[in-house]
Amino acid sequence: MTTLEHLIVALSLAKKAKRKDIKGNPFVGAIVVDENGSIIGSGYHQKWGEKHAEVFAIEEALQSGNSLSNCTLYVTLEPCSHFGKTPPCTDLIIAAGIKKVVVGSLDPNPNVSGFTLLQQKGIEVSLLEIPEATILNKIFFTNQKSNKPFVRLKMAATLDGKIADYTGASKWITNDSSRAYLHAHIRTAVDAVISTAKTVIQDQATLNIRISNTPSTELNAVIIDRNGAMLEPAQASHPIFYNRVATKVFVVTAPGAMDKGVQLPAHTEIIETPFAANGEIDLDTFGKQLLQKGMYSVLIEAGAVFSSYVLSKKWVNELDYFIGSKLLLDANAKAGLDIATNTALQNAVPLTLLESMFFENDMYLHYAIEAL
Amino acid sequence: MTTLEHLIVALSLAKKAKRKDIKGNPFVGAIVVDENGSIIGSGYHQKWGEKHAEVFAIEEALQSGNSLSNCTLYVTLEPCSHFGKTPPCTDLIIAAGIKKVVVGSLDPNPNVSGFTLLQQKGIEVSLLEIPEATILNKIFFTNQKSNKPFVRLKMAATLDGKIADYTGASKWITNDSSRAYLHAHIRTAVDAVISTAKTVIQDQATLNIRISNTPSTELNAVIIDRNGAMLEPAQASHPIFYNRVATKVFVVTAPGAMDKGVQLPAHTEIIETPFAANGEIDLDTFGKQLLQKGMYSVLIEAGAVFSSYVLSKKWVNELDYFIGSKLLLDANAKAGLDIATNTALQNAVPLTLLESMFFENDMYLHYAIEAL
Repeated sequence: MTTLEHLIVALSLAKKAKRKDIKGNPFVGAIVVDENGSIIGSGYHQKWGEKHAEVFAIEEALQSGNSLSNCTLYVTLEPCSHFGKTPPCTDLIIAAGIKKVVVGSLDPNPNVSGFTLLQQKGIEVSLLEIPEATILNKIFFTNQKSNKPFVRLKMAATLDGKIADYTGASKWITNDSSRAYLHAHIRTAVDAVISTAKTVIQDQATLNIRISNTPSTELNAVIIDRNGAMLEPAQASHPIFYNRVATKVFVVTAPGAMDKGVQLPAHTEIIETPFAANGEIDLDTFGKQLLQKGMYSVLIEAGAVFSSYVLSKKWVNELDYFIGSKLLLDANAKAGLDIATNTALQNAVPLTLLESMFFENDMYLHYAIEAL
Repeated sequence: MTTLEHLIVALSLAKKAKRKDIKGNPFVGAIVVDENGSIIGSGYHQKWGEKHAEVFAIEEALQSGNSLSNCTLYVTLEPCSHFGKTPPCTDLIIAAGIKKVVVGSLDPNPNVSGFTLLQQKGIEVSLLEIPEATILNKIFFTNQKSNKPFVRLKMAATLDGKIADYTGASKWITNDSSRAYLHAHIRTAVDAVISTAKTVIQDQATLNIRISNTPSTELNAVIIDRNGAMLEPAQASHPIFYNRVATKVFVVTAPGAMDKGVQLPAHTEIIETPFAANGEIDLDTFGKQLLQKGMYSVLIEAGAVFSSYVLSKKWVNELDYFIGSKLLLDANAKAGLDIATNTALQNAVPLTLLESMFFENDMYLHYAIEAL
């Protein structure tokens, strides 16, 4: 097998993990190959806080009792060189006497300079970047590089870009199949949905996962709510405060906006975040807070003002854009994106089309906004 | 073979015609099948003003010298019963003694009641509507039913629905591949492009067909130009008045807007059409005039005002919508459709997705607006 083929085997191992098990950790797979080309050890990172892929692979290889001094370790992500939840993998690689390490992607975390460290210790190192290894860890890489969750933004608009008619009515721009896909394949892929108090109150949104013929599934909700409107007595029976077990409603208010003694609905938590005088949330702080609360991947489903704001601040990684098969043909209908920026055409935000699907007459367009 | 299979054979014959040869006539194919199931005659309408499909098929069948009294004629479109450029096909069918006639689609022209007439004459008739026979003649059917060309409307917008930035710049919203498709597959499919003087002057548009590495191809241009701005001396060197041989520039003005003695550029013709006081063209008159000039299928490529107007008047049959892979995120950019109508969501214009394609990161969405 070629180097690439060995890395592809390791990649297929990496993919065996489930994101809910590894949480904010990366998907990693590793194999140890001896001088005859036999795979004598393999493994993948299975659970947050537990053994790394390299450890599984090397421990298995060592069970043969042979020296690994003619063996190569293929690992999809650069091995860690620092103490985290587990000791540095580089220590184990060095101790095991591995001859060569081939890496499929570099770790964006500057503390993880395993590649250089191994080289300094006289181990032969080689990097063969495989794009799929990077894409597989797009959430982890964004968390590491940008100190914020991986952010997707969903919009559902008419072909002429309207998310509601002139009265504000938006049920429904898209068809049942489009909405079913949103629930079954997009909301299920994230740790939380972010919206604004205005939208949540107006739409009486639950923001959970509803798939026909199955009970609804819980999902963390994060509500941008500078003044704590969601915590007013009038909202006590809002459907978003459904009978949660494993998830929370995070209400994001300005510091001190709420009386500390306020009675919160069950499974509700306040996140205090700075807001600018014009009402814009401090996204740098907010991003860090979301990571600290274990929300590594989030989906924004909000109105035109908040959606436009986060897009203009380049806070969004991917766009999940549904086109309902209709034209409102009305300048008084609500545009999905609506801030005045006087942007020249050459400065427009470039999009990369990741996938497209149609649901009867509706289209779903999935774009990446910034290269990983 | 079944009835459907016979009609499909006739349909495949119908498709052999070229639209530029048959002009405003329908695609029609026909076969004569004897009592043993053998096809003893076949044909299709090949050229405007010449023999109909039924005539070819019956003439060939009669060459055998046998009676057709046990034969069935399968024809994709209801046979004509009136004198047009040729005598009624029903006369020939009756004279030939055909036993049975199976029709794949009915003619929308109320003068063509061939189906009923044949039945009255004691010929067994049967209708098996095949949607493809109707779709094949969507241009002809629209011409007949609505006394207007088959109208396609092209838009090229950013994902947020903008056709130009705040300065009016629109070069380029879409990429080279999208524009190549427009030229090679959409402009080539129509008899004329319709635009407005404002757009043509602003974009210095030629509206011809340009495919890389081949010479540009002529295409009729129809310019909505109430006051004749295109005929002012300042526009004498406008590139749309290129060295035409087989096509024209039709300048559509209000009656009497231009001095009868005005010196027109070569291959230019004025069409006088009523305009309302608010500047809106009388589409009923305009549609008839286009048909009279041999423009059976047209493509509108205009700005937001005219595009919105024709869409709101339900004058458009299909939408050719290109989504450039970018976001302008600017409320001051020019929206592609921009009239205030206060339309409720349930009254939005429904679209049927006919096809979608991607060109690198751009999307092309082809919609039907009204069912045929």
